[in-house]
Amino acid sequence: MNSSLPEVDVDSGGNLPAGRYRQVRARTESLIRGLAPEDTVVQSMPDVSPTKWHLAHTTWFFEQFLLAAFQPAYERFHAGYEFLFNSYYQQVGPMFERARRGLISRPTLAEVLDYRHAVDAAMQELLAASGNDPRIAEHVTLGCNHEQQHQELLVTDIKHVLARNPLTPAWRELPAPEPEEPAPVAWREFAGGVVEVGHGGEGFAYDNELPRHRVFLEPYALAQRPVANAEYRAFMEDGGYRRPELWLADGWARVQEERWARPLYWSEDDEREFTVAGLRGLEPAAPVAHLSHYEADAYARWAGARLPTEAEWEQAASAEPIAGNLAEAERLHPQPPGGASLAGLWGDVWEWTSSAYLPYPGYRAPEGAIGEYNGKFMSGQMVLRGGSCATPRDHIRATYRNFFYPGQRWQFSGLRLARDA
Amino acid sequence: MNSSLPEVDVDSGGNLPAGRYRQVRARTESLIRGLAPEDTVVQSMPDVSPTKWHLAHTTWFFEQFLLAAFQPAYERFHAGYEFLFNSYYQQVGPMFERARRGLISRPTLAEVLDYRHAVDAAMQELLAASGNDPRIAEHVTLGCNHEQQHQELLVTDIKHVLARNPLTPAWRELPAPEPEEPAPVAWREFAGGVVEVGHGGEGFAYDNELPRHRVFLEPYALAQRPVANAEYRAFMEDGGYRRPELWLADGWARVQEERWARPLYWSEDDEREFTVAGLRGLEPAAPVAHLSHYEADAYARWAGARLPTEAEWEQAASAEPIAGNLAEAERLHPQPPGGASLAGLWGDVWEWTSSAYLPYPGYRAPEGAIGEYNGKFMSGQMVLRGGSCATPRDHIRATYRNFFYPGQRWQFSGLRLARDA
Amino acid sequence: MNSSLPEVDVDSGGNLPAGRYRQVRARTESLIRGLAPEDTVVQSMPDVSPTKWHLAHTTWFFEQFLLAAFQPAYERFHAGYEFLFNSYYQQVGPMFERARRGLISRPTLAEVLDYRHAVDAAMQELLAASGNDPRIAEHVTLGCNHEQQHQELLVTDIKHVLARNPLTPAWRELPAPEPEEPAPVAWREFAGGVVEVGHGGEGFAYDNELPRHRVFLEPYALAQRPVANAEYRAFMEDGGYRRPELWLADGWARVQEERWARPLYWSEDDEREFTVAGLRGLEPAAPVAHLSHYEADAYARWAGARLPTEAEWEQAASAEPIAGNLAEAERLHPQPPGGASLAGLWGDVWEWTSSAYLPYPGYRAPEGAIGEYNGKFMSGQMVLRGGSCATPRDHIRATYRNFFYPGQRWQFSGLRLARDA
Amino acid sequence: MNSSLPEVDVDSGGNLPAGRYRQVRARTESLIRGLAPEDTVVQSMPDVSPTKWHLAHTTWFFEQFLLAAFQPAYERFHAGYEFLFNSYYQQVGPMFERARRGLISRPTLAEVLDYRHAVDAAMQELLAASGNDPRIAEHVTLGCNHEQQHQELLVTDIKHVLARNPLTPAWRELPAPEPEEPAPVAWREFAGGVVEVGHGGEGFAYDNELPRHRVFLEPYALAQRPVANAEYRAFMEDGGYRRPELWLADGWARVQEERWARPLYWSEDDEREFTVAGLRGLEPAAPVAHLSHYEADAYARWAGARLPTEAEWEQAASAEPIAGNLAEAERLHPQPPGGASLAGLWGDVWEWTSSAYLPYPGYRAPEGAIGEYNGKFMSGQMVLRGGSCATPRDHIRATYRNFFYPGQRWQFSGLRLARDA
Repeated sequence: MNSSLPEVDVDSGGNLPAGRYRQVRARTESLIRGLAPEDTVVQSMPDVSPTKWHLAHTTWFFEQFLLAAFQPAYERFHAGYEFLFNSYYQQVGPMFERARRGLISRPTLAEVLDYRHAVDAAMQELLAASGNDPRIAEHVTLGCNHEQQHQELLVTDIKHVLARNPLTPAWRELPAPEPEEPAPVAWREFAGGVVEVGHGGEGFAYDNELPRHRVFLEPYALAQRPVANAEYRAFMEDGGYRRPELWLADGWARVQEERWARPLYWSEDDEREFTVAGLRGLEPAAPVAHLSHYEADAYARWAGARLPTEAEWEQAASAEPIAGNLAEAERLHPQPPGGASLAGLWGDVWEWTSSAYLPYPGYRAPEGAIGEYNGKFMSGQMVLRGGSCATPRDHIRATYRNFFYPGQRWQFSGLRLARDA
Repeated sequence: MNSSLPEVDVDSGGNLPAGRYRQVRARTESLIRGLAPEDTVVQSMPDVSPTKWHLAHTTWFFEQFLLAAFQPAYERFHAGYEFLFNSYYQQVGPMFERARRGLISRPTLAEVLDYRHAVDAAMQELLAASGNDPRIAEHVTLGCNHEQQHQELLVTDIKHVLARNPLTPAWRELPAPEPEEPAPVAWREFAGGVVEVGHGGEGFAYDNELPRHRVFLEPYALAQRPVANAEYRAFMEDGGYRRPELWLADGWARVQEERWARPLYWSEDDEREFTVAGLRGLEPAAPVAHLSHYEADAYARWAGARLPTEAEWEQAASAEPIAGNLAEAERLHPQPPGGASLAGLWGDVWEWTSSAYLPYPGYRAPEGAIGEYNGKFMSGQMVLRGGSCATPRDHIRATYRNFFYPGQRWQFSGLRLARDA
Repeated sequence: MNSSLPEVDVDSGGNLPAGRYRQVRARTESLIRGLAPEDTVVQSMPDVSPTKWHLAHTTWFFEQFLLAAFQPAYERFHAGYEFLFNSYYQQVGPMFERARRGLISRPTLAEVLDYRHAVDAAMQELLAASGNDPRIAEHVTLGCNHEQQHQELLVTDIKHVLARNPLTPAWRELPAPEPEEPAPVAWREFAGGVVEVGHGGEGFAYDNELPRHRVFLEPYALAQRPVANAEYRAFMEDGGYRRPELWLADGWARVQEERWARPLYWSEDDEREFTVAGLRGLEPAAPVAHLSHYEADAYARWAGARLPTEAEWEQAASAEPIAGNLAEAERLHPQPPGGASLAGLWGDVWEWTSSAYLPYPGYRAPEGAIGEYNGKFMSGQMVLRGGSCATPRDHIRATYRNFFYPGQRWQFSGLRLARDA
Repeated sequence: MNSSLPEVDVDSGGNLPAGRYRQVRARTESLIRGLAPEDTVVQSMPDVSPTKWHLAHTTWFFEQFLLAAFQPAYERFHAGYEFLFNSYYQQVGPMFERARRGLISRPTLAEVLDYRHAVDAAMQELLAASGNDPRIAEHVTLGCNHEQQHQELLVTDIKHVLARNPLTPAWRELPAPEPEEPAPVAWREFAGGVVEVGHGGEGFAYDNELPRHRVFLEPYALAQRPVANAEYRAFMEDGGYRRPELWLADGWARVQEERWARPLYWSEDDEREFTVAGLRGLEPAAPVAHLSHYEADAYARWAGARLPTEAEWEQAASAEPIAGNLAEAERLHPQPPGGASLAGLWGDVWEWTSSAYLPYPGYRAPEGAIGEYNGKFMSGQMVLRGGSCATPRDHIRATYRNFFYPGQRWQFSGLRLARDA
């Protein structure tokens, strides 16, 4: 999950960036509540970053692209951090190897928080002095969006860390699960034709949402809600993980190699799942989560349906108000769907689409290191839409394109069925 | 590269399948001219299959899907061959591990040829008796197309085998290279709009070319010829393999891991390349070949252009007569472009597109094991178009979709530039 | 590095085990001075264990082999710890995968210290009640020796953890290095003949030191001191790491694979080394440390000498009083040799021998899980002798056999030359 | 398995080397009877070399160390063969990567035989002219011994190649197995004391058998015959492969990783084994073969015994005449023991000892590339003694030290029990 900076919303009347900056930065720190310093060190697989690293890297982003860029007298907090906390910006310089982030015990959590606060202070000065400079404002907006992405990753990463521990520790509390079975799925039809997709209005969007452009869609239908745990269990009971004819070849190879037999966090008895509150009973009506694209695709084939394309999804979502089980609900876990027109469209689980993550016609990456945010990842990944229970409400929109490799499943990723109308 | 069976061309007037069968089978055997039995055993990497295996697997295809299916009294030539020579048809049964095909010295080449001839005899009987049965005819057509695909793979595979040998042995002869520099590239413009792509007429097509459907294209332009060796060398001399900003992230990782610094078969002095005739001087004006998608994409970015989408390519190609340096030219090596409207469109090198290999809207895989031909590979691969110097003339068409992983480069794969008009 | 339990020193007059227990346990906790909780989590390679794990595993040893075995009413501190903190005792039950110890953030350091203190309290009770029971006393003695081994590993492991950090953090202080060059090496001759080796007297010894037995030695000579940094640098400058004729074949393969060009902790300019006090200048006269057996062997060959056998080493050491730069000196770093008869024999660096770690004639492993301490590791490893700067004074003796794989070099391992007399 | 050149047996009266040369070279070629050219290409694992490679490498040895060294006007048969067919002589120059030998189809078998015959002709000239030159004679003797080692490897390698083929092809014929159960094992006692081991007399020996030297042995006993298939099956039925307490730690790890559950070539029903004659019924009384050192060691522990040291074995064997199921018997498969004093001591199976392969006291490797024959492999391997059913009669002797890594099991390797007397 990565990003760029056109079309920034700087409200000319006040110093909006400073307030937004404070709010986003404070929420990040609020996320470490319930974690010990030891928790913040661990990298449980190469895709995961330590909590401590997220706290530092998001800070480096502001130091690198705001303070070092726009504050001539600024002195870096620590000479070694540019190398340690650069993620993948090749044009900034060399970086510490991603897969080894969990080997770095220093700076400690306290030292990282010192780093955050020092950069925050310098940022407040910069914003007080020149927060209305549009170049600064657009980079701050980008940095805040960047940090929100890492807020979600921090959640999914620490969940993965704790899940690897045989003691299955809890981090947050969750209300007791509801044992209700899911209601039968309903379908909503859409007419298709030449439609417009991609970001076109005001407000922030990443470069990968641009430009707004026309696509041709055949008529299609979407399920009114995401696939539920109980439905996914029926797929498993019908031999889902043992029938190669249901799988893409790469997916079947992965199933064999990694001996996949259930969603990532389900217990071996298929009765419980690991959550931010530790192991607890599966909720039959809640959306199934932590699926790879391969599993989502196999389920859809088994169900006689398919995944939607990202254009189909976006066309349907463009009319739906943004509300649902998002990060502000403080659940950090999918919930049974409510009664919305397209329930669970926003929040709960990211929905895998059948679309590869590729540039839109006319796409241009921004100049410079910032241009590495999104464009260079447009290979081998699949698009997900709609946000999850760990996505902030003001971070998601109908045109938002999230992307992961088809075998990745540590995100809150599920699916909604589609079919030709 | 894989396949299916709708819309077969059975000419009702005669027994066309039998003639076509004989012709395709004979051409396959003609390809082993110049090879020793020892050459036919080796598998130089997991993607490569031994020559002997291609000869046997294509035979197994007819034995499995024609003789065993339609000839009730047929007895298999050898009880062990169903397991040894099944490639990936999970619904047929278990198969020998792909990466170990080079460990199998028996059956010998002579025994494999005996197998071919026994199956040929039984097929002639079947076709004489019931060649006009449409189900049989369509499977024979599919088997012939399947075998033509393996004819091309046999060539690219044995080229790879011989290239790994420090003695750089030659297999065929080639005329002396021409030292001409390429002419400046010209561009042809296309209007775009809602266009139709995919196979819609008569004649054979694979299932992945179906159904014909509408897409929306913005105006675009294509280079009049593929990128030439001399141009690619200029990219290299400009630091192409050392500049991360030119590469997709996955591509840059691969460049580092495998220390790529030039096309697959170029010598370290960048003056010669390995060909079916052994090492020989690079031809500056000939299309550059044996590129991965990553390299093609990086070159295009360096050149200020991009790769075409498969729909753009198909729209342009649909008006172009099929002619060029195809397998019948017996070169098995790309040639400098002639004066066609879109030179080198057919033959020479497969042209990487920017399109992921995904199902067309409304795509349905056929029922049964044959349905595994194409559909299950629609993940993680990119589309190539236009055929190469190893593709038979009657095997290629404007709607033909070839596909490989973006890191693969042992095919005759190159590129043609595109840009927004 | 691993152990057993014959011949325990239980002084019948008092409760010696209790005092020894307290002293050893206290020293272990004193080692974490200077470390942050974050430091104690990290596992920088599979051979390394986190500090936190050492603290817990040594405690588990007493819980498992004393409290659970001899205290009928004892209740385990935590149900999950038996699985988490078993190292390799197959007969005790399943264990957490060694290479994943660094993924476990819980129990936290504070919780592990609680575990230690709870077990300490229960042990004091057990020892007060039945410390003179010989079975208990001998297991306590074994547990204390076991914990001393882990004291040394804790030091070498955390050194490795900190060394991987590009910030090169310091943990302890060290006096400034002395720039003196080493004095020329002198040799001491030994007569050989049929000699006795192995533990034979009173006092504790591991099972692998038993039984005392006869071996035949040809006359030989040992260098009066270990090889010094300055000498090892001369080997490097003479192309030591580029000349295959100096190396064992396995060693040369490792040099190529891992691109070894210097001892483990030397900086790339060969002027500094990483120590417990961070990076500091190399001391020319100090013993070279952190060599693999392959490097020690190659150096000896280059120097026209060889490594001693373990019997040669033991025969020479049996007459030498135990004194030197051991753990009590609180240096945790090798020092230039003093004027002892065989300087540096005790402490400073473990000395690689040319002997494979194999059972002595007549060796018998103890019954039960304790029998897994040493015997099962007698394959593929080489013997080191003499202790290091991280070995407690009362843990080392002439018959002590340490052992590591020939490619391991994160211990304080160096060499002393030998030759035929 | 590798070699050196002191103490050569040049009979001064005639040109013995020439006759010996012819005889050894002819036997090598006789071994390929029954193989197709395709068989001679395959390398079924990195330890295995293709038949074709053995034929060429043994020829290269004479070309390199005799013709190029002693025949000033000699021109190499082919410029590329020095690189292709050097095995591991670093001082000769770079070499083709061992693990890729199976990727080389050219030179073909016929071309390799041409190479052999051309070198043979040049060698006959050299030997006719100067066969009595002691330096030449000693190198020819070494080359002949070297070739005999490769004769055995050619057999074990092609057996491995054919065994990987699901068609289980046969290469030679074998008489029908005898269903007799083994007789109870008897023991022979030996007094021990200071004994001499190593080569000391006349006749050829490898450098690793030198110098003859004294060792001290405690009294011991050896089983009168090797362990039989029926006995090994009893170990398996008693849970041998499922009980970690029977195994060295490295062995147990290997059992898990490779899922070992029986000797290398036994069928899954434990009733048949793969032989040079294809799959056939197990012979209960025949020595068990194709065990790793780990399995031999675990069996011995289960049986309440141990493996002999190499000195114990040699001391016992020094009095036994060399006779048994060796290569000249043309069985290439172990046979039930006859009535010799120490039955099966020579031939049948190599017997794993408990001794690591290390230099004898006073060992010196020869100067130059020939010095790489043995010395550099003295790390990580274990000694085997006594020859196998694939060892030529005039190649084995009481002092002969064969050596392999403890996990290797594609040789004819078994065990004889030992115990303290």
